[in-house]
Amino acid sequence: MAMISQSRRLRRTPFSDGVEAAGVKAYTVYNRMLLPTVFRSPVEDYRHLKTAVQVWDVAVERQVELRGPDASRLMQMLTPRDLRGMMPGQCYYVPMVDETGGMLNDPVALKLSEDRWWVSIADSDLLLWIKGLAYGYRLDVLIDEPDVSPLAVQGPLADDLMERVFGDGVRSIKFFRFGWFDFNGHSFVVARSGYSKQGGFEIYVEGTQNGMPLWNALMEAGKDLDVYAGCPNLIERIEGGLLSYGNDMTRENTPHECGLGRFCSTQTAIGCVGRDALLRVSKEGPVKEIRAIRIEGELPSCDRVWPLMDGDNQVGQVTSAAYSPDFETNVAIGMVRMTHWDPATDLDVITPAGIFPAIVNETFWI
Amino acid sequence: MAMISQSRRLRRTPFSDGVEAAGVKAYTVYNRMLLPTVFRSPVEDYRHLKTAVQVWDVAVERQVELRGPDASRLMQMLTPRDLRGMMPGQCYYVPMVDETGGMLNDPVALKLSEDRWWVSIADSDLLLWIKGLAYGYRLDVLIDEPDVSPLAVQGPLADDLMERVFGDGVRSIKFFRFGWFDFNGHSFVVARSGYSKQGGFEIYVEGTQNGMPLWNALMEAGKDLDVYAGCPNLIERIEGGLLSYGNDMTRENTPHECGLGRFCSTQTAIGCVGRDALLRVSKEGPVKEIRAIRIEGELPSCDRVWPLMDGDNQVGQVTSAAYSPDFETNVAIGMVRMTHWDPATDLDVITPAGIFPAIVNETFWI
Repeated sequence: MAMISQSRRLRRTPFSDGVEAAGVKAYTVYNRMLLPTVFRSPVEDYRHLKTAVQVWDVAVERQVELRGPDASRLMQMLTPRDLRGMMPGQCYYVPMVDETGGMLNDPVALKLSEDRWWVSIADSDLLLWIKGLAYGYRLDVLIDEPDVSPLAVQGPLADDLMERVFGDGVRSIKFFRFGWFDFNGHSFVVARSGYSKQGGFEIYVEGTQNGMPLWNALMEAGKDLDVYAGCPNLIERIEGGLLSYGNDMTRENTPHECGLGRFCSTQTAIGCVGRDALLRVSKEGPVKEIRAIRIEGELPSCDRVWPLMDGDNQVGQVTSAAYSPDFETNVAIGMVRMTHWDPATDLDVITPAGIFPAIVNETFWI
Repeated sequence: MAMISQSRRLRRTPFSDGVEAAGVKAYTVYNRMLLPTVFRSPVEDYRHLKTAVQVWDVAVERQVELRGPDASRLMQMLTPRDLRGMMPGQCYYVPMVDETGGMLNDPVALKLSEDRWWVSIADSDLLLWIKGLAYGYRLDVLIDEPDVSPLAVQGPLADDLMERVFGDGVRSIKFFRFGWFDFNGHSFVVARSGYSKQGGFEIYVEGTQNGMPLWNALMEAGKDLDVYAGCPNLIERIEGGLLSYGNDMTRENTPHECGLGRFCSTQTAIGCVGRDALLRVSKEGPVKEIRAIRIEGELPSCDRVWPLMDGDNQVGQVTSAAYSPDFETNVAIGMVRMTHWDPATDLDVITPAGIFPAIVNETFWI
């Protein structure tokens, strides 16, 4: 494993001092910003996430703010999901596509009001796409990256910890809803959401200077809950079938291939970019789709596309994989052609460390 | 220094196998792709770059291809530089700005023909901005990322090495011009350009499968020239005043603040986005500007903005810094307000390791 050379370009976050003090061992880079990947070890972090509560620096989920009379119109241009029924206080997972129906990002949109939205982005400069569209269409909307950095609280004890810092009102936040809650005289959006299957919250911290006081308050309040710094865990997210933009899907893929067809309303999402391209896909269905894949053997880390083979024919690819201690097998995410996507189909996967048997799993693991 | 966690999302390049075989010690991430930063040590790499010849994996300079009847019109929308006089076979350094005049990228544009361009990008997803504009304006142009990966050959012996692989025609390529040259039956764009002041070339390798054969051919042909794997060198690029997008300039800055006013023809670059905003700046000049900064003392690595102070007043910031063995001082790049940007102005710079004396240098060092 190589080192990472730090520079201003790989932006620090409001929580970086806390991350370093907690002994971060490795990073990835996400939206040109540092994202911790390991604190104690991937397996220790995984166990702890499933039993206690963690505080995650996910400031890399940068926000794109849309504000102005055309904000809601522009939002509907960005996604094939029908946003007409969405109310302020709701979060929607919204696939975003280009004119060919290729995935550009899979953010979570927060509707703050009719004329103000935050788009909490995955790993691509969606700001530039949105600005380009708004300029081209001469829309009456301001688009910018506000000084807002999400901090996630994840794990089975997340409600207990959050109550101590934000009050018992947080317990009543429903899944993918948000409210405004006070900390030190500042009001932050707190949503029940996050990139794990263990439950929890994301706090949208406004103001870089408020980052470390909140981090420290959570760590202090959660001592007897065994709170610790954490981060999205590769094993847990694969078990849970949480896709990663750039890993499991790219601009090459339609939302339907990614199993996100249920978020696409191509009949009613009037004005959305890519609608023409997706109408056909949504009618006939994709010819390849995301599947849970079980792999036997001692795998290297998945740092590139691994071809999935039926004999000499490539029928798909694996893009994320890890050994799961709980399920005692390698869990993986792949894209498989329809001829081979049925559960229990036997395949081979080609990795730099050799060829391993792979089986299409019926579902993800949790 | 922390480790980097590799994944498919941090893309490998056509040359990654060669980079690993050469013993890469550290990476950064640039355009969501791995960019080597250290092979032997920063200082050994620096010495070697200045005396021999290096082969650099700069595949991170991703290409955005514009092709179609509106390609040239769209190119002029993208930059305040006047492109009317540009001929096929030329490279232009082209600042690109948003509607407010804020820098989005500082790529090199290659004009392949009137209706076909490559934009060789710095670290932002310029593809999304260009696609958004083209879609909004309904332009008749295709925009995509082709399978083209630049490989740089840099150093005083670059001409000798390149001649052995591509023939003596490469010697007559003028600065920021390119031609088509054959390798193994493939024709590649070869430009006299690169992100160092030591001279050299960039080969635009089309086809991932052609990457390692060319890498190996260069390594084989250059054995007696002491060829080795290299990468953009922090010390050398600061000495030479080569700016880095994301480090020394961001969307916060106009081209004029970055010292790039000479590339802006706001009077004649008709149709360029941001022209209205830049007209005023170009007339009155910027109130802060990039400067070479000399710093005394034992500095940490510059992983964040360092404020430049005159007493208690912040008058600028340093964004790149390194110790230069040749100039026996810390060389740095900063942005300084006009009240303090004159050569020899004494300032202080605040770093996480303390406060150090800083002096505005008259020029960069080479």
